Amino acid sequence: MPLKPENVISNLRELRDLTANADGAQRVAFTPTWLKAREWFGTKLIGLPVERHFDAAGNQWITLRGQSEKTLVLGSHLDSVPNGGWLDGALGVVTGLEVVRYLAEKYSGKPPFTVRLVDWADEEGARFGRSLFGSAAFAGTHSIAADRARTDRDGITLEAALKQVGIDIDRIGDAAAERKNIAAYLELHIEQGPVLEDANLPLGVVTGTKGVERYAITFTGQEAHSGSTPMAVRRDALAAAAKLALEIRAIAGKHADSVCTMGSVKTFPGIVTAVVGRCEATLDQRDLDAAILASMFAEAQAASRRFAAEERCEVEWSRIWSIEPVPFHEELIPLCEESVLEVTPATRRLPSGPLHDASEVCRSGIPTVMMFVQSIKGISHNKIEDTRTEHLELAVKAFAGLAEKTLKWTEKH
Amino acid sequence: MPLKPENVISNLRELRDLTANADGAQRVAFTPTWLKAREWFGTKLIGLPVERHFDAAGNQWITLRGQSEKTLVLGSHLDSVPNGGWLDGALGVVTGLEVVRYLAEKYSGKPPFTVRLVDWADEEGARFGRSLFGSAAFAGTHSIAADRARTDRDGITLEAALKQVGIDIDRIGDAAAERKNIAAYLELHIEQGPVLEDANLPLGVVTGTKGVERYAITFTGQEAHSGSTPMAVRRDALAAAAKLALEIRAIAGKHADSVCTMGSVKTFPGIVTAVVGRCEATLDQRDLDAAILASMFAEAQAASRRFAAEERCEVEWSRIWSIEPVPFHEELIPLCEESVLEVTPATRRLPSGPLHDASEVCRSGIPTVMMFVQSIKGISHNKIEDTRTEHLELAVKAFAGLAEKTLKWTEKH
Repeated sequence: MPLKPENVISNLRELRDLTANADGAQRVAFTPTWLKAREWFGTKLIGLPVERHFDAAGNQWITLRGQSEKTLVLGSHLDSVPNGGWLDGALGVVTGLEVVRYLAEKYSGKPPFTVRLVDWADEEGARFGRSLFGSAAFAGTHSIAADRARTDRDGITLEAALKQVGIDIDRIGDAAAERKNIAAYLELHIEQGPVLEDANLPLGVVTGTKGVERYAITFTGQEAHSGSTPMAVRRDALAAAAKLALEIRAIAGKHADSVCTMGSVKTFPGIVTAVVGRCEATLDQRDLDAAILASMFAEAQAASRRFAAEERCEVEWSRIWSIEPVPFHEELIPLCEESVLEVTPATRRLPSGPLHDASEVCRSGIPTVMMFVQSIKGISHNKIEDTRTEHLELAVKAFAGLAEKTLKWTEKH
Repeated sequence: MPLKPENVISNLRELRDLTANADGAQRVAFTPTWLKAREWFGTKLIGLPVERHFDAAGNQWITLRGQSEKTLVLGSHLDSVPNGGWLDGALGVVTGLEVVRYLAEKYSGKPPFTVRLVDWADEEGARFGRSLFGSAAFAGTHSIAADRARTDRDGITLEAALKQVGIDIDRIGDAAAERKNIAAYLELHIEQGPVLEDANLPLGVVTGTKGVERYAITFTGQEAHSGSTPMAVRRDALAAAAKLALEIRAIAGKHADSVCTMGSVKTFPGIVTAVVGRCEATLDQRDLDAAILASMFAEAQAASRRFAAEERCEVEWSRIWSIEPVPFHEELIPLCEESVLEVTPATRRLPSGPLHDASEVCRSGIPTVMMFVQSIKGISHNKIEDTRTEHLELAVKAFAGLAEKTLKWTEKH
């Protein structure tokens, strides 16, 4: 049986029917619905010459043993955000399954290299606020100490939730053992943004995942009565924040793919009759180039100090989170491009703004690349998330082609 | 006994000791502490040739009958905000008492005209969000229908709270009967702003209370992922609001005494990883000149539409509240100025940004003027609200002088 993209689509629909409700996908990691998705996935392995096991961090591994222990890994995640879409993560896992099936058949159960498919545990971090859980454990970048006491809305700790699904938080680092013999890692994902649709391209070649600098910024001026305080004597913390909200666009605009976002502004006392005495804002800056990211960060800091001075306010920055840019492999990027161009006449290279499990794999030193398929209106993390059927079919074909090219590439590495 | 400003200060201190705690004054209208303040005030009337009664809206009236029924009214309010200051409102009532005492003595219990002192009920509106309660009922501008169902934090309705202190909400309009024979109304109040302190002036002549246009403004763009959405395709509702937050300063800056304030900004979804899809802001605009106020309002609306278009957002305005400017009486303003200049070498005329009971009295057609005394650092509605003792003493002297001049002015009107 040749590669059958229609298998992928029918499997994704089955999974959706099983794990979504009227509000969307509910495959939140470490919940019963997530376990049900994995159980369903197990039934899809019947009759395939593969082994299945779960590592110490709860990642699910499907192994098609080859003539060599050198290994090509395909992967993504079955978990979703609450009220999520049917494709985010699931597309990559279900496509990986079809590619494994196809390769098993093509090579009569014994490809030249071992091929594995991984379903990472808790990519989204939706319940405990810690994304890339399983892949970070695999990559050795997970800090157990920092995450042990995280709790969900109901006050259940991450440690307790893990225990309930058979994971010992103190042993998740043992997942690093899975890194042995891996020659390359490939991940197919929906874009979750509007770039490919705007360019009228079904598929894109991902050059890496952008680094992120994420900060809380507090401007402090002086609360004052809106009626009795002349404009000239005000120390308006909102004005300083407003200047920064506009300036970050100029800062991002100097570079092709940079983004800067002020996603939250809170005003205190925040009443109609008072000049804002304190304004808390967030800033999220991203770029694939570490030097650009560093310069944007420095520019935003300098601008905030300038605006604070102009408005006779104070400003303080507090880091929420940051990660360095993760550029993908310089030889796998062209392979990905070739594979895409074999199924569609045009494509483009683009960095990913969102992080993916591929970021963690790549950081651990494994040659990595990702392929994106177009998202309708760029919408994700929503029940209306969708991709055209013909684009999904092209994605399956191109990703299978990339797997085959990467097996050949592995021979030389 | 001549006018004794020290009586005013010792009375204010007594009232503070009786009705404040470590967080400040707690004389919130219709509460036991407010009733206690009024009870204390009753004890201060002992031995004076005055009558006391409460009108249908709960305003407290002290009457010193004169040779004529034509009446001069002095007034302010004993109620405070929670955690308020010792002077806001109380200064005017307690000074009024000393002036009534002084006039009663000077005219041997029978001045040429009747002199009344009014302690308005619930000037602050701190508990039910409806300020100028008693003076609006007096002026006939209170809308019972709109306010009947207002509730406090504990869910108690305004109607029930009024009933508990003996006020029938359906009869508060009967307070209008008190308007009979009134020739003029005078009010002394702390400035609650920094203008007099900045000008190094103890006392100011209030030209009126500014009109207010108070609106909620909602910009609607498109929520989007902060990582995957290029800057160029964003529809950032915060950016439109930020432009308006800065533009209102230019709009106010065209006029000497105008103020425009964006006091509250709320972002939705309001998370660090999402472009703001919806931004709710408030705008408070004030000026004493109705034409200026109208033009500022029009300019802000036009600017908001321009910014919404630039950011490909929608904008909607929703009125929270508004009141027209209330200019004080053209002959009483110079009388007030003369009175101030008799006790201190310099003063200035200034509009009041905050509203006062005098606004409602003036709107009902009664000749009205207010006098301000300097507030230290312009701070009010706070336990650290204060005014220098020597300025309080000057205020009492100037206000008594104004009362005497207004009695003379009444002869001719």
